[in-house]
Amino acid sequence: MALIVQKYGGTSVGTVEKIEAVADKIAKFRDKGDDIVVVVSAMSGETNRLTAMAQDIMDYPTPREMDVLLSTGEQVTIALLSMALEKRGFPAHSFTGGQVRILTCETHTKARIREIDGTRIHAQLEQGNVVVVAGFQGTDEHGNITTLGRGGSDTTAVALAAALDADECQIYTDVKGVYTTDPRVVEDARLLDTITFEEMLELASLGAKVLQIRAVEFAGKYKVPLRVLSSFEEGPGTLISLEEEKKMEDPAIAGIAFQRDEAKITVSGIPDLPGLAYNVIGPVSEAGIEVDVIVQNAAADNTNDITFTVKRSDSDRAKGILDNLQSSLQAREISLDKKIGKVSLVGVGMRSHAGIASKMFKTLATENINIQLITTSEIKISIVIEEKYLELAVRSLHGAFDLAEGEITEESN
Amino acid sequence: MALIVQKYGGTSVGTVEKIEAVADKIAKFRDKGDDIVVVVSAMSGETNRLTAMAQDIMDYPTPREMDVLLSTGEQVTIALLSMALEKRGFPAHSFTGGQVRILTCETHTKARIREIDGTRIHAQLEQGNVVVVAGFQGTDEHGNITTLGRGGSDTTAVALAAALDADECQIYTDVKGVYTTDPRVVEDARLLDTITFEEMLELASLGAKVLQIRAVEFAGKYKVPLRVLSSFEEGPGTLISLEEEKKMEDPAIAGIAFQRDEAKITVSGIPDLPGLAYNVIGPVSEAGIEVDVIVQNAAADNTNDITFTVKRSDSDRAKGILDNLQSSLQAREISLDKKIGKVSLVGVGMRSHAGIASKMFKTLATENINIQLITTSEIKISIVIEEKYLELAVRSLHGAFDLAEGEITEESN
Repeated sequence: MALIVQKYGGTSVGTVEKIEAVADKIAKFRDKGDDIVVVVSAMSGETNRLTAMAQDIMDYPTPREMDVLLSTGEQVTIALLSMALEKRGFPAHSFTGGQVRILTCETHTKARIREIDGTRIHAQLEQGNVVVVAGFQGTDEHGNITTLGRGGSDTTAVALAAALDADECQIYTDVKGVYTTDPRVVEDARLLDTITFEEMLELASLGAKVLQIRAVEFAGKYKVPLRVLSSFEEGPGTLISLEEEKKMEDPAIAGIAFQRDEAKITVSGIPDLPGLAYNVIGPVSEAGIEVDVIVQNAAADNTNDITFTVKRSDSDRAKGILDNLQSSLQAREISLDKKIGKVSLVGVGMRSHAGIASKMFKTLATENINIQLITTSEIKISIVIEEKYLELAVRSLHGAFDLAEGEITEESN
Repeated sequence: MALIVQKYGGTSVGTVEKIEAVADKIAKFRDKGDDIVVVVSAMSGETNRLTAMAQDIMDYPTPREMDVLLSTGEQVTIALLSMALEKRGFPAHSFTGGQVRILTCETHTKARIREIDGTRIHAQLEQGNVVVVAGFQGTDEHGNITTLGRGGSDTTAVALAAALDADECQIYTDVKGVYTTDPRVVEDARLLDTITFEEMLELASLGAKVLQIRAVEFAGKYKVPLRVLSSFEEGPGTLISLEEEKKMEDPAIAGIAFQRDEAKITVSGIPDLPGLAYNVIGPVSEAGIEVDVIVQNAAADNTNDITFTVKRSDSDRAKGILDNLQSSLQAREISLDKKIGKVSLVGVGMRSHAGIASKMFKTLATENINIQLITTSEIKISIVIEEKYLELAVRSLHGAFDLAEGEITEESN
């Protein structure tokens, strides 16, 4: 008998029928004798419906009232799911974020959880109830309703699991778990049994949008075993665990992430003086543009090139800012390339396995793919290439590192 | 500068555009310097939408969860109205029932208000905010969300006005106020300037569905001046006030109510023994059927006739119950008449004005309308007639008692 926190997202509870299916799923766990705390999101579409009404009134709705408005979305779901459980003979008790209580800071629309009081939930579990909690929301110390921002329900689930000392936190979603790469690009992409928190963080931030980054950070910090699995299909999903729990024979590379929504800006021929990187990147950041990869290279002629990537939608603005600064930077040229793609290999095993980078470069060379940028971290190697080669690069790397279904353990030695 | 509690119902806030119009209305009061506390219902249609989802899950949804579900309706409205006020430069602060806090008993879906703490509202008013409160809802002493049942927003408004010692409680609705009778039946029905709480109670219970009875009772008990007026048209509406405030020259009759959804059952030829009324009415009431008018008349032959009315939709069931008891009651006959209508004259002035009843009967006789039943109370005379004469009766009485527009004061002496 375990205490399990389960989280069901908006698409999993998008209709009354789907809510009934979720109740069926929960019923099976109850039949096994597990204690269940369920965290739910708003029914899919509901948040957009509410936001649209607010924006009919004002372009930038008052944040406090926006939270009052949006928090109704999950409140509807907890009531309906509790009813569906009652109907199946499983007594249930719903809680809004404020009722739990989930105490947050006062930053409306993107509050952070400060404290959770598990007393009321434990009392309901002891009475044999399934506890159904509204995700995404809480209250500040003055009793104002706050929300955690989009995707905050994952964070609620993990935070609850930590506060209740749950045995596992299960995030139900519309995918079967975490794959070695996007199955739409590589047909034989493999579903991972386990992945470490660090690997998951790198994969999530690189675009494998399975879990909220904040939730993963939280789970790692509080050592909450986190499992991603499908609402709609049976299967164990992927367990996100601490590094020490990874098996020796696990491969060095956990997965391959890629992104095609970036653009590359190169500022070349700048006199090689201190403060150069700041002079280039500073003005772009200050304009609220997020900079991803940054690479700097000294040239032989005492000038310097700085290349960086930004979201493709921000790239014209970033270029414009630098064009205005060209003379003060004394830069020879400023160029923008929108046709790039980024590919990243991620794996904690990289630390102990030599030759991952060279194997990656060799694989791409064999396919005649030219590498434009390289950055590396402890558990990640990212390269930027011409966009048209993106799928080819991902597929050939997936093959080269034996990530496909049924070829798991042999490559790493 | 006054403190005014205003309540806007579902049709008054049914769309974002209507919510903006309500904000315009409130802005005018603020410009005059009044302090405003607004109570709002769910946007029209919203309660039905939510109820339908619950009933897709179960025929009799869990009451506790039903309250969690339905209370989201008003929460959406308070957020949107607060935004609309902010947009107009009038700072606003929303409160759910629980946030106020409006403490109720624990009876889900039809809770009664026990106590309201005005502290938080006064604090917001002092800061120059319009306070926007979700009607219809509160929390019990354990923090569970409760609702007051349909139309409970009127009660919230009156209870708040009493708790805050407001100068007036204004109920905005889709009619201009309280009329002498239904304007759809009598074209020159007159809008009343004032009416007493007692008169309003009799008129409301007789089907002039302007205000919730509970709200009127509450206002009378706590002496809250209550005004009914239109959300959509300008005008002072109708003030519901204490009897002593009524002017001397006000007419004896405040208004004429009528109902056509009742049926009449007569049990005749019952031996005249003690307990007879209970033997007839008891079994009907115990079956959950509400009995309205009851008249008993001893006949010359030591038998007795009892006639009573029930809702037309309950009448076949009531008749069936009595048919089964016919032999034990020793009744000669049990008959059911569905084609009846009820007309009531209401007015506190009746107490001091003789001849109201005889004038009523004479008017109907002149029109050849046969009276089937008569009941009287301190401030009301009700008669039951054949349904087809209902409009004729109402119109001729409205004329006979000079209730029409512009003929107010002369009839009563």
